[in-house]
Amino acid sequence: MTWEVLSMIGTIAFAISGAIVAMEEEYDILGVYILGIVTAFGGGAVRNVLIGVPVSVLWQQQTLFFIAFIAMTIVYLFPHKMLPHWQRWGNFFDALGLSAFAIQGALYAVQMNRPLSAVIVAAVLTGSGGGMIRDVLAGRKPLVLRDEIYAVWAILAGVAVGTGIAHSPISLYVLFIVVAALRILSYTYNWKLPNKSLKTNN
Amino acid sequence: MTWEVLSMIGTIAFAISGAIVAMEEEYDILGVYILGIVTAFGGGAVRNVLIGVPVSVLWQQQTLFFIAFIAMTIVYLFPHKMLPHWQRWGNFFDALGLSAFAIQGALYAVQMNRPLSAVIVAAVLTGSGGGMIRDVLAGRKPLVLRDEIYAVWAILAGVAVGTGIAHSPISLYVLFIVVAALRILSYTYNWKLPNKSLKTNN
Amino acid sequence: MTWEVLSMIGTIAFAISGAIVAMEEEYDILGVYILGIVTAFGGGAVRNVLIGVPVSVLWQQQTLFFIAFIAMTIVYLFPHKMLPHWQRWGNFFDALGLSAFAIQGALYAVQMNRPLSAVIVAAVLTGSGGGMIRDVLAGRKPLVLRDEIYAVWAILAGVAVGTGIAHSPISLYVLFIVVAALRILSYTYNWKLPNKSLKTNN
Repeated sequence: MTWEVLSMIGTIAFAISGAIVAMEEEYDILGVYILGIVTAFGGGAVRNVLIGVPVSVLWQQQTLFFIAFIAMTIVYLFPHKMLPHWQRWGNFFDALGLSAFAIQGALYAVQMNRPLSAVIVAAVLTGSGGGMIRDVLAGRKPLVLRDEIYAVWAILAGVAVGTGIAHSPISLYVLFIVVAALRILSYTYNWKLPNKSLKTNN
Repeated sequence: MTWEVLSMIGTIAFAISGAIVAMEEEYDILGVYILGIVTAFGGGAVRNVLIGVPVSVLWQQQTLFFIAFIAMTIVYLFPHKMLPHWQRWGNFFDALGLSAFAIQGALYAVQMNRPLSAVIVAAVLTGSGGGMIRDVLAGRKPLVLRDEIYAVWAILAGVAVGTGIAHSPISLYVLFIVVAALRILSYTYNWKLPNKSLKTNN
Repeated sequence: MTWEVLSMIGTIAFAISGAIVAMEEEYDILGVYILGIVTAFGGGAVRNVLIGVPVSVLWQQQTLFFIAFIAMTIVYLFPHKMLPHWQRWGNFFDALGLSAFAIQGALYAVQMNRPLSAVIVAAVLTGSGGGMIRDVLAGRKPLVLRDEIYAVWAILAGVAVGTGIAHSPISLYVLFIVVAALRILSYTYNWKLPNKSLKTNN
């Protein structure tokens, strides 16, 4: 049950984030739907490929698809005047998708009795896959590779699930909210990790 | 039989479109072959992954590979004087690939007794996969996300196959020609869908 | 045994090349690790998908992951003063990964009794997959499509393995060194293949 709820949240959140990026890039209406669907189901496909579930399972998710479609339509039809606020909503929905899919990836790795390191890698790659596909298709540098703290929170999800701290449905939902909130705080307050450039000595 | 013919048309068409894009981007001769092969077989791999056929089936398509190779060689060796005309031939072959793979994706989804919505999504994603890979590798914005009408015709293919309008081999070939022709008309006459930019209020 | 050694060399080499590209692009410390891991295991995932091994096998490679992680950490912590030299080390490690994975792809295709053409395509695609993912994510044009001779050496690996010239473990290791060395000579001395641009008549 927790798994299905996280799938639904992650898929819809990535669909909306893809739709918003497409609108920022001035795509036409179908471009908005396609980037939304590719982000949502591409993220799910990456998750499925990485954890060994057949990708064709995606075609059975009728309900999920319809909800994502309606969500993207609402986003598209939303009145212009409120649109400026939405540019940060793209990051907001991306944060929800990251958190939901990172927890799913970690849960799967734990089920397979993988050690903690594999749980963390699974959390990071499944959490960031949808956003990577979206950003590459839109010609942007993937969020996960940019300056603001992003993958740290997927790692946190991996550690919490991998060590058993988050196990019951309630604790998983709390973890989902905490991870999403930390990601939102990261870009809102522009938190940074240290970086070490190869260009400094040129 | 219809399936094999569509596979052959789609693979060769995407191979040529990839080769033309590579020549536009001034790649060397091997870059031309590689972008052509990656476009053709990447599109096929996306189709196979999405519809649940093992990707390794690709390695059995010797004949297909040789025909694609010969087609790319002809494209590469074509006399310079006629090359300027070819820039639009890239779009022409992309249209053939889109139409062939979209119909295949839709046929597969119908065989699996999926509802119409899934048939349409299958048509769009399998039809546009090869071109997406080509454009991303060449550092371009994917055709399917740009202004000209592109995915609409894959949707049309999905509707025609999903509702059973196109079922017999002859009707599928007619559908292939209609979808490809509509796509060619779209970029020739620069048809547009409405778009709604988030930048309008900035 | 040869297979495992080539896997280890290829994975670690691609991890380091990804980490170096990330540092060149001024990513933060996690971006360095993530691009390194995505390059290494993405290359491995492309190889597995293309040759039909389940991708989830990746999660069992604990040792490999730890070695890659340590290698990336050493790269990250390396003293600044020596960093300028490293920009060509990115190409060096990419060459090792290309050679190792190209030989693996060719070996697999030979095991499956595929004809020489399929062995060559397998060598090129498995060898260049990791670098393609790395370059696309970093917003660069893939190395394999640029001017310097790159894929020719993967083709050489395919021919040597496909014709049976390289068969024993020792000959495979020699082949690995020869292919990597030829690639390194290619970018060091800036060897070129002919290219034929579509822009010449504009």
